[in-house]
Amino acid sequence: MTKLLNDPAQVVGEALAGLVAAHPGLVEVDAEHRVVTRRGGPTEGKVGVVSGGGSGHEPMHAGYVGRGMLDAACCGEVFTSPVPDQFVAACRAADGGAGVLLVLKNYTGDVLNAEMAVELLAEEGGPAVETVVTDDDVAVEDSTWTAGRRGTGVTVLVEKIVGAAAEEGRDLASCAALAREVNARGRSMGVATSACTLPSTGRPSFDLPPGQMELGVGIHGEPGRRRLPLGTAREVAEALVVPVVEDLGLRRGDPVVVLLNGMGGTPLLELHLMFAEVRTLLHQTVGVTVVRSLVGNYITSLEMAGCSVTLLRADDEIVRLWDAPVVTPGLRWGA
Amino acid sequence: MTKLLNDPAQVVGEALAGLVAAHPGLVEVDAEHRVVTRRGGPTEGKVGVVSGGGSGHEPMHAGYVGRGMLDAACCGEVFTSPVPDQFVAACRAADGGAGVLLVLKNYTGDVLNAEMAVELLAEEGGPAVETVVTDDDVAVEDSTWTAGRRGTGVTVLVEKIVGAAAEEGRDLASCAALAREVNARGRSMGVATSACTLPSTGRPSFDLPPGQMELGVGIHGEPGRRRLPLGTAREVAEALVVPVVEDLGLRRGDPVVVLLNGMGGTPLLELHLMFAEVRTLLHQTVGVTVVRSLVGNYITSLEMAGCSVTLLRADDEIVRLWDAPVVTPGLRWGA
Repeated sequence: MTKLLNDPAQVVGEALAGLVAAHPGLVEVDAEHRVVTRRGGPTEGKVGVVSGGGSGHEPMHAGYVGRGMLDAACCGEVFTSPVPDQFVAACRAADGGAGVLLVLKNYTGDVLNAEMAVELLAEEGGPAVETVVTDDDVAVEDSTWTAGRRGTGVTVLVEKIVGAAAEEGRDLASCAALAREVNARGRSMGVATSACTLPSTGRPSFDLPPGQMELGVGIHGEPGRRRLPLGTAREVAEALVVPVVEDLGLRRGDPVVVLLNGMGGTPLLELHLMFAEVRTLLHQTVGVTVVRSLVGNYITSLEMAGCSVTLLRADDEIVRLWDAPVVTPGLRWGA
Repeated sequence: MTKLLNDPAQVVGEALAGLVAAHPGLVEVDAEHRVVTRRGGPTEGKVGVVSGGGSGHEPMHAGYVGRGMLDAACCGEVFTSPVPDQFVAACRAADGGAGVLLVLKNYTGDVLNAEMAVELLAEEGGPAVETVVTDDDVAVEDSTWTAGRRGTGVTVLVEKIVGAAAEEGRDLASCAALAREVNARGRSMGVATSACTLPSTGRPSFDLPPGQMELGVGIHGEPGRRRLPLGTAREVAEALVVPVVEDLGLRRGDPVVVLLNGMGGTPLLELHLMFAEVRTLLHQTVGVTVVRSLVGNYITSLEMAGCSVTLLRADDEIVRLWDAPVVTPGLRWGA
């Protein structure tokens, strides 16, 4: 194994200690539950926005805790759902008296464990919780890890936009409706050009011969639509963008937010090059307008090489909330 | 080759188009010279801060163009110095009438080409240029690519700190003196756990068997001090930190800024874990105080796996300039 770690069983806890040490002014950690919270605790009267899921997708989710985004995130083992107690602890930590919005990516383990947590909180008289499940990945309808579509890149956009709405004082029902709307307006598709290695096994998550790509790959390296020889950046951009555009039913002139996301092991040089191709294709061939964009490693699969494209059909309100200040370890602007 | 690109010869130009497309409000590109500038051009009366070097180290340097950091950056081919004309174009583009500070990493090609550019500018009556060369890498005294120590991680810190000073209106001599002081106060050491592949050759930059690490590696994969079996994160942290601390002559109680830099292919999970180890070692064993830190991919070697540690002996003024607002594609806070 060529990983920088001590004990594979302690990777997540030790990494969270480092995250908090690197951003002492922004976040704190409940080490027992592996819950990262905003420094200073929840804001009185504000809806608490919470997320959680397996680790290995950094900066998602713990890196999005902070002003204008999440109030708390719970972190499972690598590629493994948090247990119900972690979701409970995260919801409690984010509760400022106005209820909690829990954003989940659609993976069976996450959804089941979060549902148990919501029941436990209801029994114990905990905060009111609304759950929103993202399911933006158009690659496959069901998968090895999900019933229904997988939740991927749109989750970053949902957390940013609903985080801004919560900061403005919107109530829980309004935040939940907005999160569902953003999810419904977003679609993604990814490609892998190499696998990643799990710390617990030291083995590649799947076999991908050099020169091949897994089109429609999931964020744990799950199989996608098909395996084929790696094409040019222009061909890869088309293979990702066209299914997303079709599934979303985008029309000429539609404004879109684009997330060109790196899977972790692809250099920024290539991600920028890919973004140039995606943007040119969207402008010149599809005819939609890129009004905002985000290019980099935002929802990763350890050191897997590849990228994903998420398109979000925008409107003025979505752009306004997108532009609102955000101060987190992983996303920061405007303040 | 498993890279996302079209034509290996066009990688840099196409990636710069993507960088600018992703940050249209911040930067512009002179495509002919591959010079990235601040949107809106130089600030009248402000010292222009310029950098440049080979590509493949993103976000360095073009990703550091923006308010509070660089006014322009010129981008060579991957791992290849810009030619003199590029340095000339970058200096001209950054000239606001108060002279230009040119920050270079100590690599023979960069230094020679920049010197030629400075002579050309002098002959042509161009802006006054002061050159500062960073040489913070303690791993080797001379190397395959340098006479003297290599310039690595401290370059990010120099560009940030002197960028803030220039923004405050300091004159060229003062900015140059500050840049030299920051360089003198900083030292780095890196480790690779895998090589990277150059787009032009499609081959690994060097051979490193799995389970081995190259201690003291350069940012082009140049050999370091020695090759040895990869240890635990704690052992790697010690192997990086101790030589830096000794070379800097740090004493108990000294305040330091830490850059824990990823080489490109190492997941953020591992970088955070490494930072936790580095910080614990600095606090508990060395007895210095980490007053500011930066953890992530800031000066990379394409998708090489590994990391580097840069320590900067800080003082109140350095911390004040570090905290000043910066708005660039690669580094952003406070505004």
